[in-house]
Amino acid sequence: MAADKIDTIVSLSKRRGFVFPCSEIYGGQRAAWDYGPLGVELKENIKRQWWRSMVTSRDDVVGLDSSVILAREVWEASGHVATFTDPLTECTSCHKRFRADHLEEAYEAKHGHAPAGGLAELNCPHCGNKGTFTEPKQFSGLLQTTLGVTQDTSGTAYLRPETAQGIFINFAAVQQTSRKKPPFGIAQTGKSFRNEITPGNFIFRTREFEQMEMEFFVKPGEDETWHEYWMQQRWDWYRDLGIREENIRWFEHAKEKLSHYAKRTVDIEYRFNFGGNEFSELEGIANRTDFDLKAHSEASGTDLSYFDQEAGERYFPYVIEPAAGLNRAMLAFLLDAYNEDEAPNAKGVLEKRTVLRLDPRLAPVKVAVLPLSRNPQLSPKAKGLAADLRRNWNIDFDDAGAIGRRYRRQDEIGTPFCVTVDFDTLDDNAVTVRERDTMKQERVSLDQVQSYLGSRLLGC
Amino acid sequence: MAADKIDTIVSLSKRRGFVFPCSEIYGGQRAAWDYGPLGVELKENIKRQWWRSMVTSRDDVVGLDSSVILAREVWEASGHVATFTDPLTECTSCHKRFRADHLEEAYEAKHGHAPAGGLAELNCPHCGNKGTFTEPKQFSGLLQTTLGVTQDTSGTAYLRPETAQGIFINFAAVQQTSRKKPPFGIAQTGKSFRNEITPGNFIFRTREFEQMEMEFFVKPGEDETWHEYWMQQRWDWYRDLGIREENIRWFEHAKEKLSHYAKRTVDIEYRFNFGGNEFSELEGIANRTDFDLKAHSEASGTDLSYFDQEAGERYFPYVIEPAAGLNRAMLAFLLDAYNEDEAPNAKGVLEKRTVLRLDPRLAPVKVAVLPLSRNPQLSPKAKGLAADLRRNWNIDFDDAGAIGRRYRRQDEIGTPFCVTVDFDTLDDNAVTVRERDTMKQERVSLDQVQSYLGSRLLGC
Repeated sequence: MAADKIDTIVSLSKRRGFVFPCSEIYGGQRAAWDYGPLGVELKENIKRQWWRSMVTSRDDVVGLDSSVILAREVWEASGHVATFTDPLTECTSCHKRFRADHLEEAYEAKHGHAPAGGLAELNCPHCGNKGTFTEPKQFSGLLQTTLGVTQDTSGTAYLRPETAQGIFINFAAVQQTSRKKPPFGIAQTGKSFRNEITPGNFIFRTREFEQMEMEFFVKPGEDETWHEYWMQQRWDWYRDLGIREENIRWFEHAKEKLSHYAKRTVDIEYRFNFGGNEFSELEGIANRTDFDLKAHSEASGTDLSYFDQEAGERYFPYVIEPAAGLNRAMLAFLLDAYNEDEAPNAKGVLEKRTVLRLDPRLAPVKVAVLPLSRNPQLSPKAKGLAADLRRNWNIDFDDAGAIGRRYRRQDEIGTPFCVTVDFDTLDDNAVTVRERDTMKQERVSLDQVQSYLGSRLLGC
Repeated sequence: MAADKIDTIVSLSKRRGFVFPCSEIYGGQRAAWDYGPLGVELKENIKRQWWRSMVTSRDDVVGLDSSVILAREVWEASGHVATFTDPLTECTSCHKRFRADHLEEAYEAKHGHAPAGGLAELNCPHCGNKGTFTEPKQFSGLLQTTLGVTQDTSGTAYLRPETAQGIFINFAAVQQTSRKKPPFGIAQTGKSFRNEITPGNFIFRTREFEQMEMEFFVKPGEDETWHEYWMQQRWDWYRDLGIREENIRWFEHAKEKLSHYAKRTVDIEYRFNFGGNEFSELEGIANRTDFDLKAHSEASGTDLSYFDQEAGERYFPYVIEPAAGLNRAMLAFLLDAYNEDEAPNAKGVLEKRTVLRLDPRLAPVKVAVLPLSRNPQLSPKAKGLAADLRRNWNIDFDDAGAIGRRYRRQDEIGTPFCVTVDFDTLDDNAVTVRERDTMKQERVSLDQVQSYLGSRLLGC
């Protein structure tokens, strides 16, 4: 199933309202995606778990939310205007455009070595012709716009390609107002934009995406230890939220391929199984050194070094950056949670069941309330219970169709608990609570349902 | 204090880390703002309360998160490309640019009537000269960018100026996957972008801002009743979260000034006290009719009407839209919560105290843990308590300076509770809990602190 699992997820996502093709009624050509009722809850839950883990549960990290459009000087100083480019090549036969590095990587993944003759040796993935690629040109990944009423270039601005720079330029303001001392971090989540040459692989590579980045400022010399620490933290975060160990691995960037600011970068890769590539980047954890703080100090004339009063010394902190992609994380959680097993149908015969074994903290719907049938006595009772539970969690109410089919619907979207209100409820004031993974059912009295679920939905 | 209250809030925001001028180290000229550690928590709390109130606590509204950059056709069909413009005028004397409608409104607010001679009668707010304004030109508020590798106009795209259109184009997909029937709503929060001619008034008018919009789809003929319903809901929401009744009022848009899609629009205005204007728009609640669904049906060729199976009829739903600005809401909550009263200092003498009387659900920090002094016995005890509480809430730990000064620091950022660990704690295993508004102190045993605070921080 591995190879077409992505297709299964794309189709489930659309059918159940996790992810829709963006602007689909207008052809949906942009390789962009909108998040439906379930997708927005799942995405928000991932973000909330990240924020809890990285910010509010710690005393050494604070949050920030900087603008998408920063001053143009920021991107000049950071090196993005000059070097945030991808090698663009065009097939002279079919005129499709590609990223030269991606073509070469795909070749290497297939043959185990780089193409000796470079691009000239490769076949065009679109028309199949060989030796038709143009010499790659550097193509800027920055999306540009114009602010204000001027017609000249003074209004030129860029949409941020990463949230990190918003953190660096606010370093001094945050450090002073929060009165934190290195080692400490500043975290933020938000949209970034990159003019990708070849967006694709569902929500994995899009021109508009959400990041969860944290910049951790440390004393030079302590950077390598902290790098290891954050690598482990981030690995544990995915594991704690249910990602299976066999589906993630480390990828150490080769020294000669590091970004201009990095001393070392290690990715956590997930087994996405995109055609050709078994593993792809889920999150990068980089040692950005003091490059950015120094660059902005020089360019802006504002000193962003830190004075350590106890030691009586001034230094530019080194920065460890765990940078996660929210959309990629969501895709990984969906893929990892997707399962097919068997469940008995109404006649007791085993049938295929699709179940998303999402961690309850991530599940978009926490509890479904299901009256056994549409009935003037059961329905109000079930609706009252749903309204009660809604004060704490996102609740689904479903009274359409056979109960077995409704269980399947909830399994398919990862709802941890189904609560069934049946005719016995009218006598014993109790309901049946069914757990998603084991399908075990328990009878729980109505006045205990809230606390029963509460203890099983801790941290949700 | 009214007039300079905004300045007080701007200064408090910067000093304490609610809001920083964007790109300040590069001059901060863009009239954009970044949200610091406290601002991001406050903003997130407002958003969460909105989402709870509008989505998860209801069974007739679901969420969505659509892209910032939609297909260009969306903005052509919606009328934005043609009509989303502001009247731009320039003073021929000092070459400053203004919105002609704002100049006339300011005149009207001051004199009680419109300028009989139009712009010719007005003085330039910058250089003071009269009769120097050019004939207004229509200036597009859409921020434009170019997607993809093409150099021609086929890649032209717009950053959304409102989140609403993302809802309309997904109407059918959401309706079908969520199996909702009118009356039902689709809600979303997110960034929008407008090329404002004159951004200003702190976070009130910026080129990049966050919206909280909900489109509620109803049967034609039921629209006026639902409009009234949502007006009341939204009014109650602000009131419930602490906005004082005397600071908000209704503003009914004149029929002849309605947007092209609207049958009726009523704003909730807040007493922001900007320059000449006492009240300004906080939120608009519009009856958008079936304009958008019809426009997108025609332009896309996809039928966005709804077939009511029970009634056996097909119709284009009317849309009621409560559209709130998150940044404006945050400014209103800050202004409304800002208070100066008196509190006794260490010598028992009354001194001025600044306190943000924010609703606990909105307060960025819920509890501050304060060891009476830095001490090898008190500090670990206090840190342990802080770590415990952090599992549930955003917690501050502060052990620097006199306890009275630390109380003031927490009052100033709106922290509802301070928990002091003192030397008695070592004997009685209890702490002092101080409430922000009343400054009343209560002794609470350590094993009760969690539940004591829990019952007072319900819904946080």
